[in-house]
Amino acid sequence: MDKRIGEECGVFAIYDPEGDCARSTYYGLYALQHRGQESCGIAVNNNRDITYYKNMGLVNEVFNDEIINKLGGTMAVGHVRYSTTGESLRENAQPLVLRYVKGNIAIAHNGNLINKPQLEKWLSHDGAIFQTTTDTEMIAYTIAKHRLKYGSVEEAVKRSIRHLVGAFSLVVMSPQKLIACRDPWGFRPLCMGKKGKAIVFASETCALDTVGAEYVRDIEPGEIVVVKGGEITSIKDYVNTKPFTQCIFEYLYFARPDSVIDGQPANEARELAGAILAKRFPVDADVVIGVPDSGLNAAMGYSKESGIPYGIGFIKNKYIGRSFIEPTQAMRENAVRIKLNVLKNTIAGKRVIMVDDSIVRGTTSKRIVALLRKFGAKEVHVRSSAPPFICPCYFGTDVPSKDQLIATNRTIDEMCEMIGADSLAFLPVEDLKDIIPKASCGYCSGCFSGVYPLDTEQFLEN
Amino acid sequence: MDKRIGEECGVFAIYDPEGDCARSTYYGLYALQHRGQESCGIAVNNNRDITYYKNMGLVNEVFNDEIINKLGGTMAVGHVRYSTTGESLRENAQPLVLRYVKGNIAIAHNGNLINKPQLEKWLSHDGAIFQTTTDTEMIAYTIAKHRLKYGSVEEAVKRSIRHLVGAFSLVVMSPQKLIACRDPWGFRPLCMGKKGKAIVFASETCALDTVGAEYVRDIEPGEIVVVKGGEITSIKDYVNTKPFTQCIFEYLYFARPDSVIDGQPANEARELAGAILAKRFPVDADVVIGVPDSGLNAAMGYSKESGIPYGIGFIKNKYIGRSFIEPTQAMRENAVRIKLNVLKNTIAGKRVIMVDDSIVRGTTSKRIVALLRKFGAKEVHVRSSAPPFICPCYFGTDVPSKDQLIATNRTIDEMCEMIGADSLAFLPVEDLKDIIPKASCGYCSGCFSGVYPLDTEQFLEN
Amino acid sequence: MDKRIGEECGVFAIYDPEGDCARSTYYGLYALQHRGQESCGIAVNNNRDITYYKNMGLVNEVFNDEIINKLGGTMAVGHVRYSTTGESLRENAQPLVLRYVKGNIAIAHNGNLINKPQLEKWLSHDGAIFQTTTDTEMIAYTIAKHRLKYGSVEEAVKRSIRHLVGAFSLVVMSPQKLIACRDPWGFRPLCMGKKGKAIVFASETCALDTVGAEYVRDIEPGEIVVVKGGEITSIKDYVNTKPFTQCIFEYLYFARPDSVIDGQPANEARELAGAILAKRFPVDADVVIGVPDSGLNAAMGYSKESGIPYGIGFIKNKYIGRSFIEPTQAMRENAVRIKLNVLKNTIAGKRVIMVDDSIVRGTTSKRIVALLRKFGAKEVHVRSSAPPFICPCYFGTDVPSKDQLIATNRTIDEMCEMIGADSLAFLPVEDLKDIIPKASCGYCSGCFSGVYPLDTEQFLEN
Amino acid sequence: MDKRIGEECGVFAIYDPEGDCARSTYYGLYALQHRGQESCGIAVNNNRDITYYKNMGLVNEVFNDEIINKLGGTMAVGHVRYSTTGESLRENAQPLVLRYVKGNIAIAHNGNLINKPQLEKWLSHDGAIFQTTTDTEMIAYTIAKHRLKYGSVEEAVKRSIRHLVGAFSLVVMSPQKLIACRDPWGFRPLCMGKKGKAIVFASETCALDTVGAEYVRDIEPGEIVVVKGGEITSIKDYVNTKPFTQCIFEYLYFARPDSVIDGQPANEARELAGAILAKRFPVDADVVIGVPDSGLNAAMGYSKESGIPYGIGFIKNKYIGRSFIEPTQAMRENAVRIKLNVLKNTIAGKRVIMVDDSIVRGTTSKRIVALLRKFGAKEVHVRSSAPPFICPCYFGTDVPSKDQLIATNRTIDEMCEMIGADSLAFLPVEDLKDIIPKASCGYCSGCFSGVYPLDTEQFLEN
Repeated sequence: MDKRIGEECGVFAIYDPEGDCARSTYYGLYALQHRGQESCGIAVNNNRDITYYKNMGLVNEVFNDEIINKLGGTMAVGHVRYSTTGESLRENAQPLVLRYVKGNIAIAHNGNLINKPQLEKWLSHDGAIFQTTTDTEMIAYTIAKHRLKYGSVEEAVKRSIRHLVGAFSLVVMSPQKLIACRDPWGFRPLCMGKKGKAIVFASETCALDTVGAEYVRDIEPGEIVVVKGGEITSIKDYVNTKPFTQCIFEYLYFARPDSVIDGQPANEARELAGAILAKRFPVDADVVIGVPDSGLNAAMGYSKESGIPYGIGFIKNKYIGRSFIEPTQAMRENAVRIKLNVLKNTIAGKRVIMVDDSIVRGTTSKRIVALLRKFGAKEVHVRSSAPPFICPCYFGTDVPSKDQLIATNRTIDEMCEMIGADSLAFLPVEDLKDIIPKASCGYCSGCFSGVYPLDTEQFLEN
Repeated sequence: MDKRIGEECGVFAIYDPEGDCARSTYYGLYALQHRGQESCGIAVNNNRDITYYKNMGLVNEVFNDEIINKLGGTMAVGHVRYSTTGESLRENAQPLVLRYVKGNIAIAHNGNLINKPQLEKWLSHDGAIFQTTTDTEMIAYTIAKHRLKYGSVEEAVKRSIRHLVGAFSLVVMSPQKLIACRDPWGFRPLCMGKKGKAIVFASETCALDTVGAEYVRDIEPGEIVVVKGGEITSIKDYVNTKPFTQCIFEYLYFARPDSVIDGQPANEARELAGAILAKRFPVDADVVIGVPDSGLNAAMGYSKESGIPYGIGFIKNKYIGRSFIEPTQAMRENAVRIKLNVLKNTIAGKRVIMVDDSIVRGTTSKRIVALLRKFGAKEVHVRSSAPPFICPCYFGTDVPSKDQLIATNRTIDEMCEMIGADSLAFLPVEDLKDIIPKASCGYCSGCFSGVYPLDTEQFLEN
Repeated sequence: MDKRIGEECGVFAIYDPEGDCARSTYYGLYALQHRGQESCGIAVNNNRDITYYKNMGLVNEVFNDEIINKLGGTMAVGHVRYSTTGESLRENAQPLVLRYVKGNIAIAHNGNLINKPQLEKWLSHDGAIFQTTTDTEMIAYTIAKHRLKYGSVEEAVKRSIRHLVGAFSLVVMSPQKLIACRDPWGFRPLCMGKKGKAIVFASETCALDTVGAEYVRDIEPGEIVVVKGGEITSIKDYVNTKPFTQCIFEYLYFARPDSVIDGQPANEARELAGAILAKRFPVDADVVIGVPDSGLNAAMGYSKESGIPYGIGFIKNKYIGRSFIEPTQAMRENAVRIKLNVLKNTIAGKRVIMVDDSIVRGTTSKRIVALLRKFGAKEVHVRSSAPPFICPCYFGTDVPSKDQLIATNRTIDEMCEMIGADSLAFLPVEDLKDIIPKASCGYCSGCFSGVYPLDTEQFLEN
Repeated sequence: MDKRIGEECGVFAIYDPEGDCARSTYYGLYALQHRGQESCGIAVNNNRDITYYKNMGLVNEVFNDEIINKLGGTMAVGHVRYSTTGESLRENAQPLVLRYVKGNIAIAHNGNLINKPQLEKWLSHDGAIFQTTTDTEMIAYTIAKHRLKYGSVEEAVKRSIRHLVGAFSLVVMSPQKLIACRDPWGFRPLCMGKKGKAIVFASETCALDTVGAEYVRDIEPGEIVVVKGGEITSIKDYVNTKPFTQCIFEYLYFARPDSVIDGQPANEARELAGAILAKRFPVDADVVIGVPDSGLNAAMGYSKESGIPYGIGFIKNKYIGRSFIEPTQAMRENAVRIKLNVLKNTIAGKRVIMVDDSIVRGTTSKRIVALLRKFGAKEVHVRSSAPPFICPCYFGTDVPSKDQLIATNRTIDEMCEMIGADSLAFLPVEDLKDIIPKASCGYCSGCFSGVYPLDTEQFLEN
């Protein structure tokens, strides 16, 4: 419904000697649009010359055929951005394209550095000036500094890694090279694909599918993959230097259900989460419904495991746009129905199990439960396929502050009462491991557990 | 997927002595947006003064808070328009607001008149000039002509009915009255709701829900309902003068699944269509999937009836906008995946039954079937919850010309081969009656059968 | 400075067998932009098919190369519109393109009918509906009505003339013909030009110049000129049926100084007005300055006649645009300097004669006089090249209401005191005849004299 | 006419404890709009917090009341930008707002550094990354570097001066201070004004006038003026370290005629240039006309000196906007008349002296001369109030390359023949000193003479 938990961004990059890379990037970014709707951009490389176009808005709002044709490109990097702050600065749009000591370079970044204050202090004491509020600019400075000492851009990227603490899935384009790099923990996904002679990098496999590329493999945590003239080389100095802790919420919510991340299909992870909920928190009921869109897979999993029939309980209005006029206070009670309406005959007279992808503040759940009761649900049992949020994320997920979270200072019973359900259950943190059986990675569940794969305290400002 | 079959429009009207009718109409039109995305407009009545705002675009693109506040209104009529022609004229946006012999009036219309050429000839021989290409303008002239002779606008509307042959669900606003009128056949839906002292008319009940109004009843075919100062009166001279032939495709495709039309919930009609397909055309398979969005309910019905598990087979990209750059020829084979991707683990190694709401040209079905096979479907059985289109519609549905329809000059086997399926079946025309058991209406199935509820030949130009 | 007195519109039309008429019309309208800045439009004829494009905004805002190329055309009519009311309706943009009993037609109109209420009553009692608030729509109905009885569009135009009381310079385009028509009084200008095989009609000769056409002649009052397949014919039934009363304010203010109207160059008329002021109201002074832009020619005339040197006294900011933020009250005293600044060394220590094209409300004059004094003018003598406005205009000039006019209930001395000048003089009404020695026309000075060339009383609503 | 010679920019800054500084800056920039029409921006300081808004477009296009109100500010800096390259980068819009080691800072710059390549090399070898193509960014880096070593921003600005070779009139805003700085040669103007407690800096005095501020003095070459809490201090270490060489073309063309630069009114300088032309290159004629807008003052000077009457020879279309459709090749011969038309009765049968502000390529002059002859001028004598351009400018004026200049490889006679005049004369370089009798400055005439006030060779890249 409401965008409740925010992702940081999505990246895409392509090398294709046959050109038209801007167009492929357009479709790639379009597939990654769910990872960021604030701004987007594409930088291209035509005969070592790097140009770009970026702006506020969705991919199909920012670009048109004329712009895409003009960009062309035998290499490109693209970016979709989600704004984690109320302030949406156009200056923050990516890719960041810049001149440094060795010419032009373009950088697109998904993730969040935890040592931003330390980096800014270090860089500004060497005379850096900052024109954006992004950590991408700091990554660019770090690479530029190292490029002065080392003989290639990939070497500079490698030397930069130990300065960059946190989540970064990067794509970098220099006059001659396309580089993909993932932080040593592998917080954010990054995969590689091929299509003929073309080589593609993307945040999610759904972007490979969209451009017709075949999945080759995921970038390893700490790995740097370099494409130059069609040759692929890999720098693995930082591989296996940290625990592999992919963000588990990518599986539960962020990733498109058709994406496969580090071996694990996202929709299957959600079905498994639903199945675990059915096993752990069974209840006698007539129908299982999912809250669209991201609760549907988990609802299906719950239904299959429990044997209780799956039903289509809601219809979501798909025309919500940027400039939608939010209902006034007077219409607030009816507000949820503007975006989400009930299919009455699925619900009326039934005992309903309603599965959602997560419960953050609880306000929307409360409204939906009330709506189901209004349309005749005899019982409403709520199941969340994510555990309760209890802690901040420092690695690129935009979790609301503690005072806004339903789980802060509330027992499950209190939460259940607050949303007006007959029963409520969350996926237990300890079961998270079981929703990604095919994954080659471990995971970070810091926002659900407060346990992070690195010592965050030392980086937090006082 | 592609907008394959086009609707003509959606209408909304409200009388509310507490005002802010423009805002209610905004949300009502937003709920009806699926009935027309080309243009929209709202006309309001403030102390007998009629003003309006309309433009090309979606409801949330055309209106903003400032415009809505400025409109206000204790009465309003609104309209969303679908363009049936390639040419999109801004002049054609509705409501049509005009001055005539008795002052201002606003008219919004859903439907299509079959006797347009005859009307135009008649009117222009009395000196009419036409500034739009809509039949709404002809309705306006017809009402204006009769208003000269008769003492009230509702009387003029009544006297106009015999001149207007075809589909029309109208809302009309005069300085003092709000009028709703449905053609004697009842081709297009039109319902009435209440919310406190407010009275609402809308093309579909989902719009009543969105503004928090309770459904009262559907407008009868041929009925004219007049609201004046909160009093409702009904003119029934034309009620029961024709067979009640609601467009059956409203149930199968046009209407939002949560709407109830003439007593029959649309989602239930679709589930029943799926169930009938399961009974008539059973096949051994592992999973039933629906093509989103409007194939899902029928797939659910097929699954329930057959006992074959329902699965989520596709993910649809929800960010398609007006200015999306269509794929070039080179990317055409991959085009369907830009908008619709497969959830591989639902499909791989399975015998799949794929249910769609209809098959018009067959080109999209062909691509989807190929995609399913590429991702490992062992068999693909296609079921269409609508019968094959074989004839034009003269009453507001935009069916492609015969040479574009898959069913023209093809047997079922040939169609099956064309789309590359293992089997193919359509809902039989004779079963249409069974998908609307709760409906108070009969239906028109002209586009599927060539049988229309009135003699169309006499009106068609040579 | 401020647009103080508003013109109704400008029209342009071209027949050119070599095509690209939309482009010529674009440049023609661009030259007529001073006659209307609210909206503009072009209708073209390609092989008898009439299409159009119009919108709110300036010519160079509304049209781009793509639109112009797409329009093409071997005939075209264009229009620039000035809004006389606060309400700017997009629906009122012209040309008005419509279907009537004989197919499509496009009409563009400059002027104002005084019998609009009578016309509307007559037409609406025949069933007319009005979608705009323009008299152009009434002209269209009137032509359409007569076309039913008479065998050609030009005959219908001719038969319409007796119904249309007031000012109208019309261009009309039918599938085969281009027609120009001027009302029997000739209130508004309309001229004809030629360029090779092309035939051009325009409100002013400056538009002929802009498209490289040579001036042929002015359309006579009451004349209808018909172009068909390159042949020009003229219908003169209404020529010489009324006194020829060209609006005198066209010479003084509306027309571009390079335009020649009915034989009289506008800039020369203004110089003569200045010279008459010098003769009638001499004063000892050091410099004569004009208020830009339209006071400059008269100032030059005053200077030449008096022998007092002409000086450039002001610089006008030329970047004022539609969305300029008007100064707040706090900045109001300085407001005039945002748009108009003084060239100090022209003024300081001098006795100044300041010539303006007219004085309407007096507020701007007051501010300018104060500004001149602030920058050291020893004396400021104000001369207006137009007489004082004292009455309304019914023929297309937008004069403010009496309570806003400086001359209402004030003697010259009181006006002089109000604007803070050392002396003040207006061109006497009786001298107006002497500013157009080369003109073939008489003139209407109703707004200055209250004497109109027809009995206005019978048309004014009670 | 055509923007032939481009200025680099205009700057404005204000400290006003009463706030609303964004609004004052809006009007200030509006007065400076002639110095740059590509982009504009305003940065404000509210309680030490620096925010900004900038975009492509004119001042009245970029800003609206809502934006201005939101900005507020008790300090502000603003900028209008002219693009010297075909490529118009939004990233280049100013003010440049950035974070550096001491917090936020905003910089706006008019001028051009000649040692840009050396600066970029120096800075990038310290790890700088460049996100724009402006020298403003290099100035920012230079200040940031020095701020690390020195205790205040003004000290950092001072220490930066010896690194910045060329033209710079800067305004800098830090959390607590407003700083204005002019390069030691004083190439570009920069003045100071006062209005109550408010202190204003601007490129030209016309901007002071517009906001109602009184002129105090010009900033001295090499001076740094610091405003903090209403106190003004001045740092003069670099004053009188270089010859004072104000760009002479500011007087002849760039500055608004009502501006007074370093003591000399611009309009008077132009009149003097005209008078000198009359003395040096007299010719018997009937009328002197100026090419609007910037040739008018010089024409007036010529007229006064020679005794030949001044006339208004042209009318310029004032509605040219950004998106004007340029005439096609077929219309090219008539192109000049679209923008500039002749007042025939001023010209016909006369011997005409036409004064222009400069002659750059000669193509426009050629067309205008031909036009004058076409309308009956018996003789056309052309006088340019600037000398011929023969060399590039390195200090902020955008002179076309040598191969495009009319004076390259041509004698006066050959130029005269090329433009089709009866005689041609330019203001002699040696007379430039006499057009600025009231100026406190010397001047740079490098573009006319090839003599620059510093050794340019050492900075030009090979």
